[in-house]
Amino acid sequence: MAKTILGIGAHYDDCIFGISGTLLKAVRKNHRVVILSLIGDYSNWPPVQGREKELVQGTIDLSKDYGAEMRFLNFAGTKFEVTEANKLAAAQAIAEIQPDIAFHLWPHDSHSDHEAASRLAIIALRHGDRLLPRGTPFKHAQRIFQFDNGPRHTIGFEPDTFVDIADDWRQASEWLGKLMALVRGEKYDPTKQDAAVRAKETLAAYRGSTCGVRYAEAFRSTNAYPQEIL
Amino acid sequence: MAKTILGIGAHYDDCIFGISGTLLKAVRKNHRVVILSLIGDYSNWPPVQGREKELVQGTIDLSKDYGAEMRFLNFAGTKFEVTEANKLAAAQAIAEIQPDIAFHLWPHDSHSDHEAASRLAIIALRHGDRLLPRGTPFKHAQRIFQFDNGPRHTIGFEPDTFVDIADDWRQASEWLGKLMALVRGEKYDPTKQDAAVRAKETLAAYRGSTCGVRYAEAFRSTNAYPQEIL
Amino acid sequence: MAKTILGIGAHYDDCIFGISGTLLKAVRKNHRVVILSLIGDYSNWPPVQGREKELVQGTIDLSKDYGAEMRFLNFAGTKFEVTEANKLAAAQAIAEIQPDIAFHLWPHDSHSDHEAASRLAIIALRHGDRLLPRGTPFKHAQRIFQFDNGPRHTIGFEPDTFVDIADDWRQASEWLGKLMALVRGEKYDPTKQDAAVRAKETLAAYRGSTCGVRYAEAFRSTNAYPQEIL
Amino acid sequence: MAKTILGIGAHYDDCIFGISGTLLKAVRKNHRVVILSLIGDYSNWPPVQGREKELVQGTIDLSKDYGAEMRFLNFAGTKFEVTEANKLAAAQAIAEIQPDIAFHLWPHDSHSDHEAASRLAIIALRHGDRLLPRGTPFKHAQRIFQFDNGPRHTIGFEPDTFVDIADDWRQASEWLGKLMALVRGEKYDPTKQDAAVRAKETLAAYRGSTCGVRYAEAFRSTNAYPQEIL
Amino acid sequence: MAKTILGIGAHYDDCIFGISGTLLKAVRKNHRVVILSLIGDYSNWPPVQGREKELVQGTIDLSKDYGAEMRFLNFAGTKFEVTEANKLAAAQAIAEIQPDIAFHLWPHDSHSDHEAASRLAIIALRHGDRLLPRGTPFKHAQRIFQFDNGPRHTIGFEPDTFVDIADDWRQASEWLGKLMALVRGEKYDPTKQDAAVRAKETLAAYRGSTCGVRYAEAFRSTNAYPQEIL
Amino acid sequence: MAKTILGIGAHYDDCIFGISGTLLKAVRKNHRVVILSLIGDYSNWPPVQGREKELVQGTIDLSKDYGAEMRFLNFAGTKFEVTEANKLAAAQAIAEIQPDIAFHLWPHDSHSDHEAASRLAIIALRHGDRLLPRGTPFKHAQRIFQFDNGPRHTIGFEPDTFVDIADDWRQASEWLGKLMALVRGEKYDPTKQDAAVRAKETLAAYRGSTCGVRYAEAFRSTNAYPQEIL
Repeated sequence: MAKTILGIGAHYDDCIFGISGTLLKAVRKNHRVVILSLIGDYSNWPPVQGREKELVQGTIDLSKDYGAEMRFLNFAGTKFEVTEANKLAAAQAIAEIQPDIAFHLWPHDSHSDHEAASRLAIIALRHGDRLLPRGTPFKHAQRIFQFDNGPRHTIGFEPDTFVDIADDWRQASEWLGKLMALVRGEKYDPTKQDAAVRAKETLAAYRGSTCGVRYAEAFRSTNAYPQEIL
Repeated sequence: MAKTILGIGAHYDDCIFGISGTLLKAVRKNHRVVILSLIGDYSNWPPVQGREKELVQGTIDLSKDYGAEMRFLNFAGTKFEVTEANKLAAAQAIAEIQPDIAFHLWPHDSHSDHEAASRLAIIALRHGDRLLPRGTPFKHAQRIFQFDNGPRHTIGFEPDTFVDIADDWRQASEWLGKLMALVRGEKYDPTKQDAAVRAKETLAAYRGSTCGVRYAEAFRSTNAYPQEIL
Repeated sequence: MAKTILGIGAHYDDCIFGISGTLLKAVRKNHRVVILSLIGDYSNWPPVQGREKELVQGTIDLSKDYGAEMRFLNFAGTKFEVTEANKLAAAQAIAEIQPDIAFHLWPHDSHSDHEAASRLAIIALRHGDRLLPRGTPFKHAQRIFQFDNGPRHTIGFEPDTFVDIADDWRQASEWLGKLMALVRGEKYDPTKQDAAVRAKETLAAYRGSTCGVRYAEAFRSTNAYPQEIL
Repeated sequence: MAKTILGIGAHYDDCIFGISGTLLKAVRKNHRVVILSLIGDYSNWPPVQGREKELVQGTIDLSKDYGAEMRFLNFAGTKFEVTEANKLAAAQAIAEIQPDIAFHLWPHDSHSDHEAASRLAIIALRHGDRLLPRGTPFKHAQRIFQFDNGPRHTIGFEPDTFVDIADDWRQASEWLGKLMALVRGEKYDPTKQDAAVRAKETLAAYRGSTCGVRYAEAFRSTNAYPQEIL
Repeated sequence: MAKTILGIGAHYDDCIFGISGTLLKAVRKNHRVVILSLIGDYSNWPPVQGREKELVQGTIDLSKDYGAEMRFLNFAGTKFEVTEANKLAAAQAIAEIQPDIAFHLWPHDSHSDHEAASRLAIIALRHGDRLLPRGTPFKHAQRIFQFDNGPRHTIGFEPDTFVDIADDWRQASEWLGKLMALVRGEKYDPTKQDAAVRAKETLAAYRGSTCGVRYAEAFRSTNAYPQEIL
Repeated sequence: MAKTILGIGAHYDDCIFGISGTLLKAVRKNHRVVILSLIGDYSNWPPVQGREKELVQGTIDLSKDYGAEMRFLNFAGTKFEVTEANKLAAAQAIAEIQPDIAFHLWPHDSHSDHEAASRLAIIALRHGDRLLPRGTPFKHAQRIFQFDNGPRHTIGFEPDTFVDIADDWRQASEWLGKLMALVRGEKYDPTKQDAAVRAKETLAAYRGSTCGVRYAEAFRSTNAYPQEIL
């Protein structure tokens, strides 16, 4: 049965960097895939100054090409904290999306946006119904996993769950490459490897090496659940 | 396809206390279940003084009733360390058993027998072939999990894998209860709960509470491996 | 000399679940026992919809039967964060209560209410005097301990202090059982074990097993202090 | 080439207690040394009641004597949290100071002011430019180190970088001693060791003992960077 | 009632450096105090070459002056490991000493002698009876605590139990000073502080600062046990 | 001044996999570079059966081409433990090599050879003089660093020291590639990337990504030492 798979990030690229392989695998399995980026206001981010709306629309369009529905809230980078208004905004989005399985950022990170986004995701996924008007339909995701943002950012992340993404690697790499071209306002050139794509490849190869496959993504489950291991 | 499931403990009761629910589940699935107890010489253990052979044979017979093949090496408690001879003895047993999935004790524990047994199991499971004569057939278990010995013994154990044993709880509890009666040289009285059975119930209920079921056993995987989580 | 023992929780049941044995022991020793529940507004909690005031008053009445003074602030679940107004409200309560020994929730937990309540308790207990008008009498608790919320919620809690509650177990279990009956709007039936009571029993038996008694509660001291161990 | 070295603390004394040896060493090397104390409003701190402005001015004057420029924001102890206004205030100060190397408090501490100051420093140092008006010049410190507040306060601090301060010890000790005299409104008496100076000596001797010198200060680098070790 | 307090170290000075304050406190309380040093053969230790027997006898005599019975096994530094013979030797000593409360080295340390001594102590204290001839009387210590060897040696030690040694500090310091003079073959000069005494003072002041007294020694309990905290 | 840089591994390839970039950098700086492989007997390793002596000699010859002196002890894989004889053998080698800076394996690893080699290296580097005949000249390395064996093997390694090896990457990669060809008994083909080389590249890119360079090797210092950070 088709499930709704939700990735929550702070920035437009957090999920496309962090969990694109897993999301593409979900698309292949005919699940519905949604990405929620809390930051939708890029007016204080110099690389896209004057093009901030194109970045948002371009990310939505590009993600659609790969089978994912990309949504943005209207937070601005570095300017949001965990307030009642922001918790409510995240809860409303989750009430609409109705996720079965959710992924959000690991809470310890050198980038404060990642930490605040992580905490907002935790609150909205687990207790969003408490923030919404009585009677609002709300689905609690059955499984919630955390992902990290790579070796330059993350603090103390130790994964316990690995997903083999070797079969989706080419597409995952291309998706991120096109997104980076969009940021630079250039055409995508598949012969040149962007720094972000190289970082993604390094991380995916490292996780793959950890679990014995070519490329992997790694998660930490937020709740223990019984498994079949025999 | 039927697999061989192997539990390795130091004492006659380590696996029956620690992983009986998982082993009984394996029996129900028609897997072959073997328990290897490194300590087979109980002559320096006061509770069974003069009855040490009965303890070993009785444990074998009782385990057979529950579908498990119990084997003993001839180590004596507190007296064995990680030596080449002991590594070889463990490797020989594993070469004979040919496990597909193995369980052994977590290496950090207040009881030195548990620590030495853990290290011997790790070496023999992973590199036993290096210790045996050239050409000896040897099967490397595909999955190796560690289990702890309960709150009074274990040091720093944090499980990452849970098995629901609610359906096997009654039998697991009875198996351990009968074993404890055997140690005391008494008939098993199902109306009286032995201290070990109570400890097992506490641990299984605690693990169950962690992962959202009535009773569970908890493990730590020694190797990362890819999972299907979608 | 009689001391004032204070337990601080987020929800109406956090202390009755977490530290009732220790509180009942304090009552037996003729100490004054106070519980401060930060959340007093249950209008957004479906199980008691329309009965939220009865829950609060019922919890106060029931706790009185067991010798404890239960107080509520007016926070609503999931809706409060660590703001100056909330810090002040907690500080005022503590100024009135004048605790000698205080217990509050461990700060790392999958429930955001527990995390916010923990941080508010820390600030108000340690520095509440800084928030109140000059000259307000304020007592700093000499000992502050943290307690966890059980295996399904807590993250990384490792206790260093254990209290034997075997002698108070029956009462502790009954107190929680009656509270759960109150939530369901039913009469208390001592022959049926509520899920929360079973969870409490599991946790208390696990902690007891850790420290060698039948039932225990476990804490982490927030400040080192010298002990007599000889 | 002269660099700008910045220490960020919550209280007037956090850097003079924590990193004075390193700052004095920087002064000796002709670097520009700036201290930023977030709390500049001491009206709710009893020891200097009625003298709060003298404390601030006196700390500025005293620090000047030791070669350091001391600056204060206007936060009040226990009353500030991580809000957009406070992040902006910290970012503005950093934009003016233009640090090359920065030191701030370790984020886990029993004093909530230290935790909030740590988080504000992290955000302002790393992403302060995002908070300021477009085009505001902003320098990102190349190295950022964290320091702890001593054994009575800090939680889980494990340093990875040590600075030998034996040559600056006498001055460091005197600076703190004079500051404590200022708080008490007394003349500095070099023959009497203040409790804070004794605590500083204990910490510096402990860190020195760890790395094999007489006195040291210890840090944790917030970012990995390549070193020459051959 | 008088108890037997046992400290176990690798070298002649491990307990006099690590736990002298606690031992002197025990002497004051009229407990019997015994120190067991596993290494009694100092022929491969250059500082006392040709005087190794004087070191052993001198340490015994000096300890007697402070109320402690010092015993040596015959191990040589760096040359012993955890073998059955060495376990037996330690077990025999413990059978003779009959400790009520025991202290031994923390198992993680940069000095391999400390690690081996720690493991031997653990085995002999807990399971020594299993190594000895049947019927040998054997007393299991009711409490076992671990101590560290100071910041230059220890790895990851986090104490949970503190003992105030301020009242015994002068004697503790003198005992160690005299022992160091013995090693150097000099007369004890109370006006000169030996490096080891300075290290002891730094460690004791650091632990004292942690728990709010002038000087303390810090331990980690190897077994949880219930406490009275009300 | 030229120093002697020593890498200690269990197997012929541990240092060439783990620290080749750092060793090649040392060669470029005209330091003397020595590698000590404890295992010199490969007769129980199937891949080189009948060619075990060629492997040893070939590794020596190949390392010479890259400026490193490769030495082997005669241990056999899986068959050695930490005994007095083995400690002595390692100590003798170190006495001959006289290292200034040494690197050895991190002690926690899923491969027991790596753990035993780590412990032997620690003992021999720190206390080797105690094992050798009186008067044997012995040099204690001033700095000792630990390295890990990659994500599939290592347990809990967290580096604190990074070395940029980008300039030595091509050579490091080639050295390992040629070594793997030697194992397979094939000619080195630079156009085919061996699995070990790919694993090395993944690890070096991951460490580089952590510290902000293209390729790096990462270490954990075994002793704190003061640094110049200003």
